[in-house]
Amino acid sequence: MACKRLYRKAVLFGDSITQVSFEEGGWGASAADLLQRKCDVVNRGLSGYNSRWGRILLPHILPLDLLKDTVIATVFFGANDASLPEIAPDKYVSVEDYSANLKEIVEHLKTGGLRPDQIILISPPALNGEEWRKVCIEKDVKMNRKNENTGRYSRACVQVAKDLETHSVDLWSIMQEDKDWKRYLCDGLHLSPAGSQLLWKHLEKHFTKLAESLEMIYPDWSSIDPDNPEASLL
Amino acid sequence: MACKRLYRKAVLFGDSITQVSFEEGGWGASAADLLQRKCDVVNRGLSGYNSRWGRILLPHILPLDLLKDTVIATVFFGANDASLPEIAPDKYVSVEDYSANLKEIVEHLKTGGLRPDQIILISPPALNGEEWRKVCIEKDVKMNRKNENTGRYSRACVQVAKDLETHSVDLWSIMQEDKDWKRYLCDGLHLSPAGSQLLWKHLEKHFTKLAESLEMIYPDWSSIDPDNPEASLL
Repeated sequence: MACKRLYRKAVLFGDSITQVSFEEGGWGASAADLLQRKCDVVNRGLSGYNSRWGRILLPHILPLDLLKDTVIATVFFGANDASLPEIAPDKYVSVEDYSANLKEIVEHLKTGGLRPDQIILISPPALNGEEWRKVCIEKDVKMNRKNENTGRYSRACVQVAKDLETHSVDLWSIMQEDKDWKRYLCDGLHLSPAGSQLLWKHLEKHFTKLAESLEMIYPDWSSIDPDNPEASLL
Repeated sequence: MACKRLYRKAVLFGDSITQVSFEEGGWGASAADLLQRKCDVVNRGLSGYNSRWGRILLPHILPLDLLKDTVIATVFFGANDASLPEIAPDKYVSVEDYSANLKEIVEHLKTGGLRPDQIILISPPALNGEEWRKVCIEKDVKMNRKNENTGRYSRACVQVAKDLETHSVDLWSIMQEDKDWKRYLCDGLHLSPAGSQLLWKHLEKHFTKLAESLEMIYPDWSSIDPDNPEASLL
């Protein structure tokens, strides 16, 4: 029974939209479900983080030891980088620095052994300013993001993916192809279950291709010899 | 910033009801969501497996190297063990052997460093014979399980937990406390989303207690010094 014994790893690296991706209807849970008996899905989402902070953490949060068994990775920053510098300078990262940080993250993943086609850069989602303004008022902070500005980061993300020959999901544009796109957000900034599943719809082909390339770990129960299970299993 | 850098592990070991636990509404995904920024949830569910085959795989599927960082584990066999010996002798495990296998699994987890109160034995779910019979007819096999027989395995599971001072979830009994319990199954044997969430309701207190005992990994974004993020992060 020549079946792989090693559960490979799928790494999800990003901000809060990655961190909460195992919520009901979440895209991270969908990935884990698709990769059952093949990969462990490792969530490295950090709420509120921008690509600068993610880049600084690279050797710690994505150590080479973790990456050596990793066969797919998503990189999903930008929603915080795109904060307006005059309102939220702490989170703000210029679009040029955002691109440079994404490049450094991809280079690190490549150093860890991933091929460019095993890496998916996800652009920040579109922003519903009307809803997000309400959240800002509730939090007693100034309105700190604009959809058009977030679009610049989205285009930069897609460009980095082109330059480095990785895959990308242009979530900002994909969402807005739907007239009713605001339903993809729960608070104007973060994904609703519908938004999470829209993202998954565009990630799924890459994860499916991976799943099809990997053998199931441990034999199917029906092929185990009940009189000598050790021979089948070990 | 004295924050833990190591993502601990939560291990889910069992049969198909564990393997599919990241489906929408699944209890494994709920565990991963609750433990975000604290633990990686490692799914070691094997569809169709009984406790004998799980026990044989122990040193391979739950190696000590994996267990050393593990802080909670669920063990969830019995639904296949309780196959009727005269109909499905390949999957059948006697209730005595089932108990012995559970004990061996718990002892292995303890050898790996887990305390008994970090281990949760889950009993097989109740069986809706009417629905499962339909599945058997569709598969052109003889009806191979009986609810009352599965109940014997459930009681054995609870007894092992008492003997070894681990936690347990008596899912078979809990389900049947609800007059409308058949809705907790999708095909008479496997959990529906409602059943998965019923199980989660009874697991949640243990996972919550664990989550409360663990620090969040990496600082909250609001405590990062934007002028010197390295000092906060590294």
